[in-house]
Amino acid sequence: MKKNLIVGQSGGPTCVINSSLYGVILEALQAENHIDEIYGMVNGIEGFLKGNVISLKKQLDSNEQKVLQTTPGAYLGSCRYKLPANLEDEVFAKLFEELTRLNIGYFLYIGGNDSMDTVSKLSRYAESIQSSIRFIGIPKTIDNDLILTDHTPGFGSAAKFVATTVREIAMDAAIYDKKSVTIVEIMGRHAGWLTASSVLARKFKNDNPVLIYLPETSFNEEDFLKEIKQHLNTKTNLVVCVSEGLHDEKGDFICEKVNSVSVDNFGHKVLAGCGKYLEELVKKHLNVKVRSVELNVTQRCSSTLLSKTDLDEAALAGRAGVQAILTGETGKMVAFHRATNKPYSITTSLVDVNEVCNQEKKVPLEWITNHDTDIADEFISYVLPLIQGNVTIPQKDGLPLFAYRNF
Amino acid sequence: MKKNLIVGQSGGPTCVINSSLYGVILEALQAENHIDEIYGMVNGIEGFLKGNVISLKKQLDSNEQKVLQTTPGAYLGSCRYKLPANLEDEVFAKLFEELTRLNIGYFLYIGGNDSMDTVSKLSRYAESIQSSIRFIGIPKTIDNDLILTDHTPGFGSAAKFVATTVREIAMDAAIYDKKSVTIVEIMGRHAGWLTASSVLARKFKNDNPVLIYLPETSFNEEDFLKEIKQHLNTKTNLVVCVSEGLHDEKGDFICEKVNSVSVDNFGHKVLAGCGKYLEELVKKHLNVKVRSVELNVTQRCSSTLLSKTDLDEAALAGRAGVQAILTGETGKMVAFHRATNKPYSITTSLVDVNEVCNQEKKVPLEWITNHDTDIADEFISYVLPLIQGNVTIPQKDGLPLFAYRNF
Repeated sequence: MKKNLIVGQSGGPTCVINSSLYGVILEALQAENHIDEIYGMVNGIEGFLKGNVISLKKQLDSNEQKVLQTTPGAYLGSCRYKLPANLEDEVFAKLFEELTRLNIGYFLYIGGNDSMDTVSKLSRYAESIQSSIRFIGIPKTIDNDLILTDHTPGFGSAAKFVATTVREIAMDAAIYDKKSVTIVEIMGRHAGWLTASSVLARKFKNDNPVLIYLPETSFNEEDFLKEIKQHLNTKTNLVVCVSEGLHDEKGDFICEKVNSVSVDNFGHKVLAGCGKYLEELVKKHLNVKVRSVELNVTQRCSSTLLSKTDLDEAALAGRAGVQAILTGETGKMVAFHRATNKPYSITTSLVDVNEVCNQEKKVPLEWITNHDTDIADEFISYVLPLIQGNVTIPQKDGLPLFAYRNF
Repeated sequence: MKKNLIVGQSGGPTCVINSSLYGVILEALQAENHIDEIYGMVNGIEGFLKGNVISLKKQLDSNEQKVLQTTPGAYLGSCRYKLPANLEDEVFAKLFEELTRLNIGYFLYIGGNDSMDTVSKLSRYAESIQSSIRFIGIPKTIDNDLILTDHTPGFGSAAKFVATTVREIAMDAAIYDKKSVTIVEIMGRHAGWLTASSVLARKFKNDNPVLIYLPETSFNEEDFLKEIKQHLNTKTNLVVCVSEGLHDEKGDFICEKVNSVSVDNFGHKVLAGCGKYLEELVKKHLNVKVRSVELNVTQRCSSTLLSKTDLDEAALAGRAGVQAILTGETGKMVAFHRATNKPYSITTSLVDVNEVCNQEKKVPLEWITNHDTDIADEFISYVLPLIQGNVTIPQKDGLPLFAYRNF
């Protein structure tokens, strides 16, 4: 008996999350013997609870599907909604009532750690009530912090953006014959994968960025100033890359030393301003021109610097998710396994979503070198394949064309 | 008798200032009957005074010249050095002694208002001592604020970056079903050309950015909050674009407002940008999620979003400068005249550099509409031709290749 499929997006946007959605739609359309309607939940599980569901077959013709693939953000909208830990909470009964009403057999959720938590809870609840509805997670996060997968869709493009932009900022910073420090703040609350990618910006020995600080190790202000002072002896214009999540040895975030902090729905502190803080620190202690640049949301929404590898793999993850769910899998996340590195090739596999959710994969400490100020070559050979290939974005009048939901 | 040519770059970097340098070199190489050596002054007139001069023929083979064209920053390095107003100052004698020693006949300077001031003073000094050395300015500024020219090289690419990036930020901002305001701060201290370009990000009526504030008019906080409140009634996620140079009716910059600054744990004031200030203002007065994004230096150094039109015109300006100087012109700046708008075509002309320098061309007030919150269609038809065409950047390993001076 044919069932319907529903797909949702959750957590922070990336520039390839819609490529995974595109992959899901493509594969689901090809499985017409098993899948009837393809639904999209608008604003994730939170929107679903409000009955906000659309038919994706009706929304997207094949031309719009192609535009969808390179559209940043989250076509279906997203949410930061955490299901209760107690599976006996009434919200689960309500959710499954609605899923049953829509004749859903297959539920795919594209997101990061928190979204995998949703997949975990829903699949466990299904098991507890012996429901036949299946649940699969499609990984997505620029932070690259999901465990049990070689890397995550979204990371490669963000890494390409960071590496390219830091190289450009270094060109911009180098023009005056006057000692200067440029601090670039890069996303990554607890994991430094994205900040580490700035190492790719270097073209020669002692090139910028001369110092790179990740949140995997403790940050010491005195050591930081000492390093900068020393590098200024041999180089006029320094570029220093720092993760937004830098913290001192007590675990206190550097950015909290300057900003009032708000807390999101998951209890995560909303961070901003570690670059700004360090700018002030350098200004105060060293007689040198200094500025800070926060890459901010552009690093996760730039369609201009998409990695073709990342874009294709994001679609692949979506397709693999549909294939898995049709063969009876549930409570799993699609993962990447690096089969070979030269030439680069991956295979997909399935991992237990209960093991993935609420975990964080950090940069291995042995890849953080030179008194916690540099990145090992092992990281470079890990990340380089992920940023390869360019993507041509559909354009009109010199600007990118994106796909929009009809309202 | 053959003379040597010297070229310099001055003021802030752009992503096409090296295309003008490329144009100068190309044209100078073709004028081998008139021009012997092609010198580059390193770090502009300031470096020249220190004897910092390189041979560009030796530095750049033809392959490197092509890479040079799409390299952001300023290949020769730059300076912010203002020559004294008094032409009898000894610095002029010193400069001309050095120019004579190097057998310079032709002096080209690529820059904005301040750089044209340098060209003006040097050409006037040359006249006063009856020197035959000629001086021509090549316009350059992302701010587009030079008078007597339709527009300036550098503006088109920066405008393309701003429009594209604001469109992407709008996609990023739209994903949650929760009232939000995203404030994007764009460069332009006194002229709002670049901020106005964000209007191109809109795809449909009432699309983001819903509000655009330029520094040409006074900014009123109460009106601003009222506008935002009103737009939040009909739209969930607002993107608002503001110029860094917003000021109140007294002329005080918004970014300098004392009550906007945070204090770090040493009790030092941390100066916030105007976007950050407005973020805090909205947070304080309206119960809504708000964040600010400062596009910062990326808007002037992104090689990824080069406008082909801008890149070609920058090279054209360089070539036109060499052509003009060889026909005996001095004390002039190369200017663009828009011959036709549909189809777009320009011609170059020469304008008196004394009239250009230290002047600022602002966005006409009649192009600022809707109680100073929006931009007229006339601006769109002015700017749209300038952002057309894409440029393929030479790459290696998935990252852009740039040209570097040998040290």
